[in-house]
Amino acid sequence: MKVFDIAPVKYLDGKMLVLDQTRLPGEEVYIEMQSKEDVFEAIYKLRVRGAPAIGVAAAYGLYVEMRDFPEEKGLAAFMQALKKAKDYLISARPTAVNLAWALNRMCGVLEAEKPQSVEAAKQRLFIEAESIRSEDEAACYAMGEYGLSLLRPGMGILTHCNAGTIATAKYGTCLAPIYLGAERGFDFHVFADETRPLLQGARLTSWELSKAGIDVTLICDNMAATVMKKGWVDAVVTGCDRMAANGDGANKIGTSGVAILAKEYGIPFYMYVPTSTIDLNTASGEAIEIEERDGEEIYKMWYEKPMAPEGIKTYNPAFDVTEAKYITAVITEKGIVRPPYRENLEKLLK
Amino acid sequence: MKVFDIAPVKYLDGKMLVLDQTRLPGEEVYIEMQSKEDVFEAIYKLRVRGAPAIGVAAAYGLYVEMRDFPEEKGLAAFMQALKKAKDYLISARPTAVNLAWALNRMCGVLEAEKPQSVEAAKQRLFIEAESIRSEDEAACYAMGEYGLSLLRPGMGILTHCNAGTIATAKYGTCLAPIYLGAERGFDFHVFADETRPLLQGARLTSWELSKAGIDVTLICDNMAATVMKKGWVDAVVTGCDRMAANGDGANKIGTSGVAILAKEYGIPFYMYVPTSTIDLNTASGEAIEIEERDGEEIYKMWYEKPMAPEGIKTYNPAFDVTEAKYITAVITEKGIVRPPYRENLEKLLK
Repeated sequence: MKVFDIAPVKYLDGKMLVLDQTRLPGEEVYIEMQSKEDVFEAIYKLRVRGAPAIGVAAAYGLYVEMRDFPEEKGLAAFMQALKKAKDYLISARPTAVNLAWALNRMCGVLEAEKPQSVEAAKQRLFIEAESIRSEDEAACYAMGEYGLSLLRPGMGILTHCNAGTIATAKYGTCLAPIYLGAERGFDFHVFADETRPLLQGARLTSWELSKAGIDVTLICDNMAATVMKKGWVDAVVTGCDRMAANGDGANKIGTSGVAILAKEYGIPFYMYVPTSTIDLNTASGEAIEIEERDGEEIYKMWYEKPMAPEGIKTYNPAFDVTEAKYITAVITEKGIVRPPYRENLEKLLK
Repeated sequence: MKVFDIAPVKYLDGKMLVLDQTRLPGEEVYIEMQSKEDVFEAIYKLRVRGAPAIGVAAAYGLYVEMRDFPEEKGLAAFMQALKKAKDYLISARPTAVNLAWALNRMCGVLEAEKPQSVEAAKQRLFIEAESIRSEDEAACYAMGEYGLSLLRPGMGILTHCNAGTIATAKYGTCLAPIYLGAERGFDFHVFADETRPLLQGARLTSWELSKAGIDVTLICDNMAATVMKKGWVDAVVTGCDRMAANGDGANKIGTSGVAILAKEYGIPFYMYVPTSTIDLNTASGEAIEIEERDGEEIYKMWYEKPMAPEGIKTYNPAFDVTEAKYITAVITEKGIVRPPYRENLEKLLK
């Protein structure tokens, strides 16, 4: 299965490589990261995106920045430089929770374990970066296994946005069962919503699935109802950016509409939610603040000619909240959660 | 109200002008039509689109082609040339029912009334073209009045695709009540779905509404659920390409999804259906054949850079069928039809 060749961040033969997602699907280019500046730029310019993938990139990036630190300057100077590099990298996308989380974890392990030499500190950083990557990979693999238990060979599966291999360390969240199933000859037929305005479904999901040899059909978002009505969709799978205690899940704009259509057509809607994404302190989706982005994404970006009248008023929420009542099951790396979510999510996290 | 300045086809001071809709919203250019070749090109290249507008353009186009026919060649030669021009123009978009309908009506009136001179025949053609235009305008106006009776000042109204002024002789079908309401100070807030893949909502609806001074907000198709959930939408209005005897209505792809969301959020869904569009010989929407178009519209058209991997499989239906159960009322130029549609549509047409 070709999916194993694809990863958003690789560390091979002493080189850290980042897949430049801004050049997909036209070109598949891995850029070598040689300094914190390289990594900052890659994160800032969205060459690497997807919360887990950003965390992995930042972790390896911090190691790459520090790996040539001169032994003779001593540990105190090393720790100072490390802290500075960490703060610098966090500033690349200050609102990306996984970015700060991964970098703080990298520094925290040295503070806790107090290695006795610069060399030992460097080695520890590398091991921690590897752990961050492999733990995410394992979590995705687990979500894939749990998710796969809900699917059957030959099924049609619709997905929205990109919660795939290139958004995580490997496998993705909601695409993980598709990759694992493909390995076992499950022969899925995937429908990828293009996901306006930024086209993550067209540019990324359809790219990574077709590269892995999986049957994928690209549709516009507004065609989801039609493929469902035709009986071509047996399950809907999506990622999740944040889930409230009651099971309401915020995800890419358009997800909630897909969930409502799935309910109308009697199709199960599965949301893939790493437990780190579940926030029991948020009572319901109403408390989740939704980022509104520039309307240029709708009427200008990507296009050669004007797509709409100059100065047109737009509304461009980046996410929406899918109410728990539309979610058939929540798939986490610790297992599958069914309603009632308030009770069962809490049980899972305990 | 500025809408009165906009029309897809104008005949002013002896000149036939067609608004070049392919250059919207960037440029507002009217092209003079001087021959059947000009009109063929304008229809073929979609400079004029929308079934009623195509009919109006063809009718005036036939007159323009014939208006310089030499008197001395006689009536028989005139009728021969007319027939040839008609067949030529029909071939511009052979599946456009209104195109053939308007041209056959133009020829039919001469065959029935047998004018006694070339000059009289030319005058009769002009009068018939004017009738075709003014009858469509009157039908749209009537739909606007009926539709307006269902709306209240200050309402939020969501629409999909473009069933507006520039798709008809004037006023449009589902946008007619918005224009008539605006004239009377109704102060509507319109949400225009961009309508992928061809962006008729972004390019055309948001253009004509904003030009008429109506408050319009452009959204991506996948944001409709969010604006509905926020309580910003009090009614959904759409056009219809063909309605079956049971009230199932085919319209631009994405319409059925909007209708399902409207039902879920308790928002009335009004379909604007000129009686010429109702086909009592088609039992239900299942019998309506849906045109599938080239996937390039999804992954290539409009964009500078690749939107999806080369050779990606796509599914690109141009229309979908909204089941009658999701349609709150059907607005025609003869009145408003409520369920049960099979019974009430038949009554209306009798």
